[in-house]
Amino acid sequence: MLELCVLRVLADGATYGYAVATRLADSGLGTVKGGTLYPLLIRLENAGLVTAHWRAGDGGPGRKYYELTSRGRAELASTADRWARFTALTGEILANPPTSTIPASTDASTREVAP
Amino acid sequence: MLELCVLRVLADGATYGYAVATRLADSGLGTVKGGTLYPLLIRLENAGLVTAHWRAGDGGPGRKYYELTSRGRAELASTADRWARFTALTGEILANPPTSTIPASTDASTREVAP
Repeated sequence: MLELCVLRVLADGATYGYAVATRLADSGLGTVKGGTLYPLLIRLENAGLVTAHWRAGDGGPGRKYYELTSRGRAELASTADRWARFTALTGEILANPPTSTIPASTDASTREVAP
Repeated sequence: MLELCVLRVLADGATYGYAVATRLADSGLGTVKGGTLYPLLIRLENAGLVTAHWRAGDGGPGRKYYELTSRGRAELASTADRWARFTALTGEILANPPTSTIPASTDASTREVAP
């Protein structure tokens, strides 16, 4: 899920790790530590979903910018879609108030299965 | 998530493992294997969220019925609520089309952070 949100942030344009973390925090996802975020970015890079390149700083140190590849964009679209369907399904299951009651029958010959 | 759905099924009344699996499958969650479901039910029992007791079969073997405890009911309510808020948040993040573009500036002195 975090991976999916990182892809979504990068869909807005190439940026560096710290800015990704800030965006995630601003979205309400809480603090994502560097020890979580950077290995994740490396995995995304190894999977060909993002590319990374250094940009020189203005006198200061450079920053590594991460950019979504077309493969990353496709992955974002398909995973976001699957996630949306999964959460819709679970939302439906959990939102339903308990309606059907499975009779606590002791008759094992009656294969009671909820509707 | 599966644990949450099992608690939800049991909120409809005490039932046995096979019926839980059938309900989950009917909900669209796919097949949940016994090797996944039964250890999960044992964990729920150990955590005091469900109680289990054997009911004699009608000539055939008995079945182990699982029943939600009041603690299990409270756990279901709070976890379902947290899950709903989490999926609403992620849904919002992912549903937004890419709008803001973080300029690919090489000026490191400009601390660009998305709004």
